[in-house]
Amino acid sequence: MKVSPPVKPGTRVAKGARTRESILRVAVNLASVEGLEGLSIGRLADELKMSKSGLFAHFGSKEELQLATVEMAREIFVAHVIRPALTKPPGMPRLWSLCQNWLEHVESRVFEGGCFFTAASFEFDSRPGPVRELIVQAMRKWLLTLSRAVEEAQKAGHLQDSVDPQRFAFEVYSLAIGAHWGHQLLGDRKALSNVRGTILGRLRALSTASCPPLRKAG
Amino acid sequence: MKVSPPVKPGTRVAKGARTRESILRVAVNLASVEGLEGLSIGRLADELKMSKSGLFAHFGSKEELQLATVEMAREIFVAHVIRPALTKPPGMPRLWSLCQNWLEHVESRVFEGGCFFTAASFEFDSRPGPVRELIVQAMRKWLLTLSRAVEEAQKAGHLQDSVDPQRFAFEVYSLAIGAHWGHQLLGDRKALSNVRGTILGRLRALSTASCPPLRKAG
Repeated sequence: MKVSPPVKPGTRVAKGARTRESILRVAVNLASVEGLEGLSIGRLADELKMSKSGLFAHFGSKEELQLATVEMAREIFVAHVIRPALTKPPGMPRLWSLCQNWLEHVESRVFEGGCFFTAASFEFDSRPGPVRELIVQAMRKWLLTLSRAVEEAQKAGHLQDSVDPQRFAFEVYSLAIGAHWGHQLLGDRKALSNVRGTILGRLRALSTASCPPLRKAG
Repeated sequence: MKVSPPVKPGTRVAKGARTRESILRVAVNLASVEGLEGLSIGRLADELKMSKSGLFAHFGSKEELQLATVEMAREIFVAHVIRPALTKPPGMPRLWSLCQNWLEHVESRVFEGGCFFTAASFEFDSRPGPVRELIVQAMRKWLLTLSRAVEEAQKAGHLQDSVDPQRFAFEVYSLAIGAHWGHQLLGDRKALSNVRGTILGRLRALSTASCPPLRKAG
């Protein structure tokens, strides 16, 4: 993840960074609804009621805008899903927190169009180029975060050692994107809570006797 | 599924139907790679080296073309995934055959860009209109086919009665779209065979003593 250097508040640079950030938040929502490929500088200028040349000052091309939008989406995802889970003790509670936060951020419409990355993944899977690469990178990081959490749960003695961390992370990942799909496409209001139950059932079935109790939030 | 009436071979109508079908097969592949929204009459005319007016004779608008493309994709899916499974005895063998054919049609690139419907689902989940409705309809039919196969496996005494057919169909569905995603986006060659193993493991874990043995094909 590219992290910009801190900017001094009140300066012109700070104002530029704030504007850029607020533009990108709109871009993320627009892309989550209409797709990243639909995100042109013209379309975004319409949405923001800004001039195209004003936007060009921030992003030199459509591709640059798409890349910055993916990075902003990743920052929002880290803030809503990953960071809060890191406050939980490593082990099953953290793994379960990652899963819950992930489902919750779709349920509470952090991105207007549902899960930004699931949509972007399927949109760009057959479009080679830097945008696809950045999406792949973000998804690999997320799968790595999940499989590390599985390993930590094993080290903490909460999860059976026979579980393959990468495969299990992938299984949990798949169940969650299925839920996003059911929620978003079929309008199935129970999709997310059903899948929350399925994941919890899998975690409990594979847990050890020393695993702390896991509960559904809410 | 709309089924066209049979046409007499050699007639002008038959030729028109054949042309329409071969145009739609190209459209399906194009849409599986570039997305359904990218499928305009102009783009398709380029690909087919046909005139736009020739294409307009078959499809009056972009939306009509998109709808016909979704219907053709559904016919191809039924022919490759559902119909061959119906030759298996109802019960676990048929359920497992549906899952295997589904993964196999992605592996063997029946659609150039991977799984047509998974991609279309995520592309159109936030775009209301007739195209989205037709995709939703196709996906509901597919989930119904899966959950009926789960019920049949229970009636045949192969699968534990405690399994909820709809939820289990959804779980299997989610695992498979996860596999399509890993295969297509991450280029993970093992994604499909890993998920085949995960689904087989789930089916075996929930099967009864009278379930016939299930094997991985290939």
